Amino acid sequence: MTFNLPTDHLLLGSCDYPEHVPQDRWAPYAAQQRALGLSYVRLAEFAWSRLEPAPGQYEWAWLDEAVETSAAQGLKVVLCTPTATPPAWLVRAHPEMLAYDAQGRVREFGSRRHYDFASPVYREHSRRITRALAERYGQHPAVAGWQTDNEFGCHATSRSYGGASAGRFPEWLREKYGTLDALNDAWGNVFWSMEYSDWAQVRPPNLTVTEPNPSHLLDYARFASGLIAEFQAEQVTLLRELSPGRFITHNFMIFESGFDHYEVARGLDFASWDNYPTGMLEFFAPPGVNEALKTRYARTGHPDLVGFNHDLYRGVVGRGVWAVGKDSTPQPTAHSPQPGFWVMEQQCGPVNWAPYNALPAPGATALWTAQAWAHGADTVSYFRWRAATMAQEVMHSGLLRHDETPSPGHAEVGALDQTQFPLGPVPAKVALLHDYESLWLYDAQPHAAGLSYWAQTVTYYSALRSLGADVAVVHADADLSGYAVVVAPAVTLVGPERAARWAAAMEGGAHLVCGPRTAFRTPGGGTWEGGQFGPLSDLLGARLSLYDSLRPGLTQGVSGLGASFEAHTWAESYRPLGAQVLATYAGGPLNGEAAVIRRGQATVIGAHSEALIGAVLAEVLTTAGVPVTPLPEGVRLSRRAGQVLVQNWNPEPTEWNGRMLPPVSFQVLPEADHA
Amino acid sequence: MTFNLPTDHLLLGSCDYPEHVPQDRWAPYAAQQRALGLSYVRLAEFAWSRLEPAPGQYEWAWLDEAVETSAAQGLKVVLCTPTATPPAWLVRAHPEMLAYDAQGRVREFGSRRHYDFASPVYREHSRRITRALAERYGQHPAVAGWQTDNEFGCHATSRSYGGASAGRFPEWLREKYGTLDALNDAWGNVFWSMEYSDWAQVRPPNLTVTEPNPSHLLDYARFASGLIAEFQAEQVTLLRELSPGRFITHNFMIFESGFDHYEVARGLDFASWDNYPTGMLEFFAPPGVNEALKTRYARTGHPDLVGFNHDLYRGVVGRGVWAVGKDSTPQPTAHSPQPGFWVMEQQCGPVNWAPYNALPAPGATALWTAQAWAHGADTVSYFRWRAATMAQEVMHSGLLRHDETPSPGHAEVGALDQTQFPLGPVPAKVALLHDYESLWLYDAQPHAAGLSYWAQTVTYYSALRSLGADVAVVHADADLSGYAVVVAPAVTLVGPERAARWAAAMEGGAHLVCGPRTAFRTPGGGTWEGGQFGPLSDLLGARLSLYDSLRPGLTQGVSGLGASFEAHTWAESYRPLGAQVLATYAGGPLNGEAAVIRRGQATVIGAHSEALIGAVLAEVLTTAGVPVTPLPEGVRLSRRAGQVLVQNWNPEPTEWNGRMLPPVSFQVLPEADHA
Amino acid sequence: MTFNLPTDHLLLGSCDYPEHVPQDRWAPYAAQQRALGLSYVRLAEFAWSRLEPAPGQYEWAWLDEAVETSAAQGLKVVLCTPTATPPAWLVRAHPEMLAYDAQGRVREFGSRRHYDFASPVYREHSRRITRALAERYGQHPAVAGWQTDNEFGCHATSRSYGGASAGRFPEWLREKYGTLDALNDAWGNVFWSMEYSDWAQVRPPNLTVTEPNPSHLLDYARFASGLIAEFQAEQVTLLRELSPGRFITHNFMIFESGFDHYEVARGLDFASWDNYPTGMLEFFAPPGVNEALKTRYARTGHPDLVGFNHDLYRGVVGRGVWAVGKDSTPQPTAHSPQPGFWVMEQQCGPVNWAPYNALPAPGATALWTAQAWAHGADTVSYFRWRAATMAQEVMHSGLLRHDETPSPGHAEVGALDQTQFPLGPVPAKVALLHDYESLWLYDAQPHAAGLSYWAQTVTYYSALRSLGADVAVVHADADLSGYAVVVAPAVTLVGPERAARWAAAMEGGAHLVCGPRTAFRTPGGGTWEGGQFGPLSDLLGARLSLYDSLRPGLTQGVSGLGASFEAHTWAESYRPLGAQVLATYAGGPLNGEAAVIRRGQATVIGAHSEALIGAVLAEVLTTAGVPVTPLPEGVRLSRRAGQVLVQNWNPEPTEWNGRMLPPVSFQVLPEADHA
Repeated sequence: MTFNLPTDHLLLGSCDYPEHVPQDRWAPYAAQQRALGLSYVRLAEFAWSRLEPAPGQYEWAWLDEAVETSAAQGLKVVLCTPTATPPAWLVRAHPEMLAYDAQGRVREFGSRRHYDFASPVYREHSRRITRALAERYGQHPAVAGWQTDNEFGCHATSRSYGGASAGRFPEWLREKYGTLDALNDAWGNVFWSMEYSDWAQVRPPNLTVTEPNPSHLLDYARFASGLIAEFQAEQVTLLRELSPGRFITHNFMIFESGFDHYEVARGLDFASWDNYPTGMLEFFAPPGVNEALKTRYARTGHPDLVGFNHDLYRGVVGRGVWAVGKDSTPQPTAHSPQPGFWVMEQQCGPVNWAPYNALPAPGATALWTAQAWAHGADTVSYFRWRAATMAQEVMHSGLLRHDETPSPGHAEVGALDQTQFPLGPVPAKVALLHDYESLWLYDAQPHAAGLSYWAQTVTYYSALRSLGADVAVVHADADLSGYAVVVAPAVTLVGPERAARWAAAMEGGAHLVCGPRTAFRTPGGGTWEGGQFGPLSDLLGARLSLYDSLRPGLTQGVSGLGASFEAHTWAESYRPLGAQVLATYAGGPLNGEAAVIRRGQATVIGAHSEALIGAVLAEVLTTAGVPVTPLPEGVRLSRRAGQVLVQNWNPEPTEWNGRMLPPVSFQVLPEADHA
Repeated sequence: MTFNLPTDHLLLGSCDYPEHVPQDRWAPYAAQQRALGLSYVRLAEFAWSRLEPAPGQYEWAWLDEAVETSAAQGLKVVLCTPTATPPAWLVRAHPEMLAYDAQGRVREFGSRRHYDFASPVYREHSRRITRALAERYGQHPAVAGWQTDNEFGCHATSRSYGGASAGRFPEWLREKYGTLDALNDAWGNVFWSMEYSDWAQVRPPNLTVTEPNPSHLLDYARFASGLIAEFQAEQVTLLRELSPGRFITHNFMIFESGFDHYEVARGLDFASWDNYPTGMLEFFAPPGVNEALKTRYARTGHPDLVGFNHDLYRGVVGRGVWAVGKDSTPQPTAHSPQPGFWVMEQQCGPVNWAPYNALPAPGATALWTAQAWAHGADTVSYFRWRAATMAQEVMHSGLLRHDETPSPGHAEVGALDQTQFPLGPVPAKVALLHDYESLWLYDAQPHAAGLSYWAQTVTYYSALRSLGADVAVVHADADLSGYAVVVAPAVTLVGPERAARWAAAMEGGAHLVCGPRTAFRTPGGGTWEGGQFGPLSDLLGARLSLYDSLRPGLTQGVSGLGASFEAHTWAESYRPLGAQVLATYAGGPLNGEAAVIRRGQATVIGAHSEALIGAVLAEVLTTAGVPVTPLPEGVRLSRRAGQVLVQNWNPEPTEWNGRMLPPVSFQVLPEADHA
Repeated sequence: MTFNLPTDHLLLGSCDYPEHVPQDRWAPYAAQQRALGLSYVRLAEFAWSRLEPAPGQYEWAWLDEAVETSAAQGLKVVLCTPTATPPAWLVRAHPEMLAYDAQGRVREFGSRRHYDFASPVYREHSRRITRALAERYGQHPAVAGWQTDNEFGCHATSRSYGGASAGRFPEWLREKYGTLDALNDAWGNVFWSMEYSDWAQVRPPNLTVTEPNPSHLLDYARFASGLIAEFQAEQVTLLRELSPGRFITHNFMIFESGFDHYEVARGLDFASWDNYPTGMLEFFAPPGVNEALKTRYARTGHPDLVGFNHDLYRGVVGRGVWAVGKDSTPQPTAHSPQPGFWVMEQQCGPVNWAPYNALPAPGATALWTAQAWAHGADTVSYFRWRAATMAQEVMHSGLLRHDETPSPGHAEVGALDQTQFPLGPVPAKVALLHDYESLWLYDAQPHAAGLSYWAQTVTYYSALRSLGADVAVVHADADLSGYAVVVAPAVTLVGPERAARWAAAMEGGAHLVCGPRTAFRTPGGGTWEGGQFGPLSDLLGARLSLYDSLRPGLTQGVSGLGASFEAHTWAESYRPLGAQVLATYAGGPLNGEAAVIRRGQATVIGAHSEALIGAVLAEVLTTAGVPVTPLPEGVRLSRRAGQVLVQNWNPEPTEWNGRMLPPVSFQVLPEADHA
């Protein structure tokens, strides 16, 4: 097949559901999409009951027609496996395929994602419908690629706490540990006589009298993540076989925590994600984002929450990483014409699923599109073409309103000059380390109600962004060559191999900045016999002294770097064993103890203080030769392909660098022009 | 039988439970009730286990004695079917009669309302005990009427999510839709492959992975409402047969939302409701009522929350409506000597079921009684005679305290001059439209956490009341002849017939004022293909442009009617297609769009702003010839039978119209005297 | 056996888990414990799976070694029955031993306390492991005593709402009531036709449609409390037989409400409790403790919350009461060398289980130890020796950190001079009456969201403490001889016998002060036919008039004792029938009614106002000859054995009595020196 779409700049698309509207609308919609400058249309998501209304009875005619109608307008089609919505006839015939929630209740048919990844019968039908669809459309010239399922993990569906998953968990443990002694030892089950004497005694970690063993939680999370990867791999195998030359992706979720995205993304050509900036701020924001901030950015979302997800998903598939020192130019592959990442669903009006669903500011849809590009997106596909007139999402907007008139988002999309957004590398010199296992452990025992893995991670990310730095979010075990600065805000699980990788990166010249609780945990989920920093102790030249969980209103002073700071939420101190002390605690029970330490090119920040984190990072970036551009609130810079995207996310005009940036606006400038 | 009670003024009564006290108290209590000026006593509510302590073994002696004791004092008796409390022997013999909650749990015996309306065996026993009771007392000269069951829907009992109800739902759907295609189409089940291929696949809309289809919710609510109507109709049929000439009523609940009260009230002679003003404010107040307001009115309740429920239940039974242009005078019927409505349970001291249960202000019991009269009540019956000394409600007050001494409420009742409260019409020229189906849809997808159907409806009601207008709350499909102004604050479901009725009312001279989201929805629960206002589009001369869900702290300016306003919580804008624009949005993403539109005598207000709503309504009322009397906070006027009740609900003296109104007080004045 | 430990001053210990660490750490740990000045080590808690890894296969070698290692250092061992953690092989073989939560769900294996006290099979295994352990170690010279199980009631485990408990409840009722008529009458089941006609119809009081009958709740609480007592008694019987001369205790919980501690403690030699002052403040504080107070005392806990629990558990076992007029000197018994109470687990660093887990202030561990002594503790045992490196409690601190270095708490313990803390009586002249049945009834129907039994009780306790008084918390039916003042803050259940005891105490010269709702309830859980104060009416010379539940922001003025006060949360008034009125309500619906009354030496305070309560108590104490020393915020005095412990719990230096007390500090002074 040939790709006749431009490959030198950002492309646009939309998510359409022809089965939701009368057929006489299909051709006009396709024509309007093309006229708007869209290149892609995503089809057939959730359409299982229309593709197979009764067991084995396939109905292809309508989708044939829909694909042809799009193709006739020169649109390329992204097809979806419809497996997120197994139909009623399947569910009622095999109720054992339903998942259980953490409260022990069966999760019923009547919306979506009502399946247990471990269910053999569901898996069999997933393969069957995938094969049938791929056989029918796999080699159609208009079909550019595939999306598997939809939004793994959405609505807390990563883990089922009963049924098929519960049944398979003991097997998985036996395979991993071999002996019960090894399992009991790894989990520390001696603690409360939780030792197992038979594999079949182990159940999911829910409904325990008080909190379960965090090691139990950790392994259940790993097990469930593996099931999702296994499930998707079955679809990928079929699609590779039956639809050669097409890309395969999955549309991941905002801040989804239920599985290891690196593991699940393996085998995809690139990652996609679904970008809803206002809903993200209301619904998914980590605890540190307060009400005032939510109100301020209610109509745009917060630049760093959105940017973080872009930078995260850019790095989830190895080949999709546009980092200096790695892939310095886009590398088209056999499976993927554009090896970056996609925004598969892009908000272009109000969403419907947050507690409040503000109308986006004028310019927001364009700004979101431009930001996606600048952070490495190759395609942005709007959700959805026309607002739905039925069922769960009638309050959700589209490019067309319910009455088919164009929405404000439609006008903004139409006004975009796509050639303004050239493809090319994101020149990030800073790597932010991320690890889902650390996330699971951190959030299992946060020790302070206002803190979480994402909260701590985003605090560091936001500090870097407000210093004007581009950031690559990469796995904690990734190849770190080429990065000037490596930041590990919350990588609490560090084993010897990970420690060795980090040491190697530093030998290669990188500066390392660690947040609190780094290397507190072992891979088993316990703590190191020798205490934090476990295998990093020598590298960092210190050990943990004390930690302090600070309730709202309780703060801990810090003095150093020529200034005073106030830690909130969390403070931990260190006993230097070779490290120098950059800042000490002042007052309180930590008075005089080390708050920030450094040994060589490695720095550890123990106190949760935005100002302190910013000050330390600014100093490290400067030392490492990464240009620092302190930015005012709401102003952000993102660089790609020799351009710099200057963004103002503020609802008011903002002065920066001698120019007045209009509210909710962007400018693309040649990087050279920007001081 | 004869009615020897006065029929020209308000009568009083009380709820008594002789089975709760030693028999030597019965005669003194009856004598004291009569001495206090009470005319009615309600008996036998919840008394099933005493009337039938074992299967088929009836014990009438005690109730015979209780009825005679009351009769001997000239009291008229209201008897209750005791079906809200099926006894243990019945429940344990037939556990399948228990209901399921939305969490999928069986709702256990041990309090009340533990039954599924759909249960055949429960229904059989309900008919049996009703028949037995009616046979025994149906023609007793002291028995004036009947109350069916008690407080349908209380404790979220309108709907059972399993068992008998779940079993009957598919049947009901088949009867309604005929074919599965029709069902799938009506619900838009294609949306997430929720299409059914067998009726038996359909279950109640609970425990779905994420929110269920709102059409599924809507039909389940309709189905459950129909079950309640069917259940009650069986009792009504028996009572009509066996107790001729007596009235039949049911005591409805404050702001109860679980069923269509118009449907369930059909067949009753008049509606009753249970009026607990302080508990209502603490427990049932819609989200717009803030903490400051709750504190201010903690000892009286809020006049408009109470008034709304009066005006609602006055209109629930057609013949009970005292509206100008309809029944201009009370019409005694065969079944009902007094065709208005009753307050069956009237608070006369602290309640026990709210988070806080304040002692009412001195004068509150009298004020509540007077207000009930002025809004159309023909009888007010206090709950309860003596405070209970056992079980769930020991903290609830009565006219007598635990120690049988009179409570402050008792003194206030004794001081009332009942002849001050003549019966007669409530001269409401303003109709407020109400529709339970709109309520269900609205609250299924409110789109803004601070908003609900009741919140929006009560905002408009309160605006009208603070302008001094009397209001009739009527069904959205009611005959609207005789009303000068018709207000539809939140009637989001509008089909062609409803639209035609409204148009007819306007042709008849009425002014129409609609709130946001009017006619957003189809009868199926989706939205109109042509968008809001669906079948009202021509009448209103506009279409929906955009809607905005405003989080706390985020507001949207509005400019028009010679003033500036601030919308909060919700703002929607319109594209005029014939309508004139009365107010436009100023600033924000709606800047310059229409906020208030008018075509002819129809006005639509898109912005949720108390001040704007008040300004528009004042202007419309004036134009329509309805006198406008702007009232200070806490002062209210209510008119009936040529009198005007001037009320001060404030805890401090309040000046109004040149006179100083004492705190928590009322005056009955001839309407002519009031400027 | 001989007790070779000093018996004239406070001793210290720690909780250690040798099975959690490699065996090469055992000997050094024991040596370090002894070097730190510890006398006791608690072992084998939770160790069932190590003691009996498979059914009937006991493994003693490791515990033999652990006991010998401690003994070799001169440490005395407290052994635990490991029954709080039945192992997986037992649970999976007999799943019917698991408990049910109030939501009807089985409480799963995977943490601790996963058993139903009523389960016959679990009970059999509990006896078996207890016997085996006692046979093995009961006469070992190093074993000083036993702890049964661990923290009864922790994680809401006092009551199981299904399974074995549900099965036994009807039996228990039959035994108590004999006939169903008696049961129905006692509970007032006529109220909502809740009458039972067969014992088997009765179930636990959960999942009822609305709240269950409080009498049902009350009897279920009594039943469950009795099960715990019965369960423990089986262990005590075995231990007495097989381990003569050793003490037996149980480590009770902070403010645990799920059972009657007096009943369960019967048969123990003395009570112990687990003292975590910072977690207590964050997690267990009654509703009256606001956020500002939580922040102020975040690093020490609140002195009165901690002190209350000390004074409570000192009095839970009769012989352990060090009250004037009772045991004036310590009485060693056959079973107990030291008949006071123990702190079995004493916080010595951050805990892990509260929403926030602050680092304790420097000096806090020493202050807590000193306070425990001054309130009557004979031994304080720190939790735990070394911080755990695995499982649920890795975030919890110990005397050693994860890396085995000493924590700040370790240093404070090492610096204590134990001889500064002589044993001897606590000279409390004030008895505060406490009753779990009143607690259950009070909290079943609190009537005001901000109020609870503990909140009301602690308010009075704190008022007494801030007047410098030492307080004995004693059962409401205790022998009250020797007390000058008896305070009953919330004893809402008062029957004739209790009333007679109080009257007798007053005849003996005691002054009585009652809080609101005193004697509101009957032993059956209803209210008195003659109203509050039931059998106390003559003694108090008054009856209840009205009660008022005050929402935040609503207050009720009080005037009397030469001052004005403001009641919040709760106010009740009285009709004097012989009593004099000390204070009256001013304004509001209670205006002019009696707020504080007195007859002879009995005073009743109806208004919840800290200032009023303090004023009345100060006056009563003075009259009764108890010295009053008004103390500033955070300063407390506690007396024992002729010494007075002056404590400053404030985070800043505080001036008192002419001296400047350092922050978080204490001084032991001879009582005579203290003015």
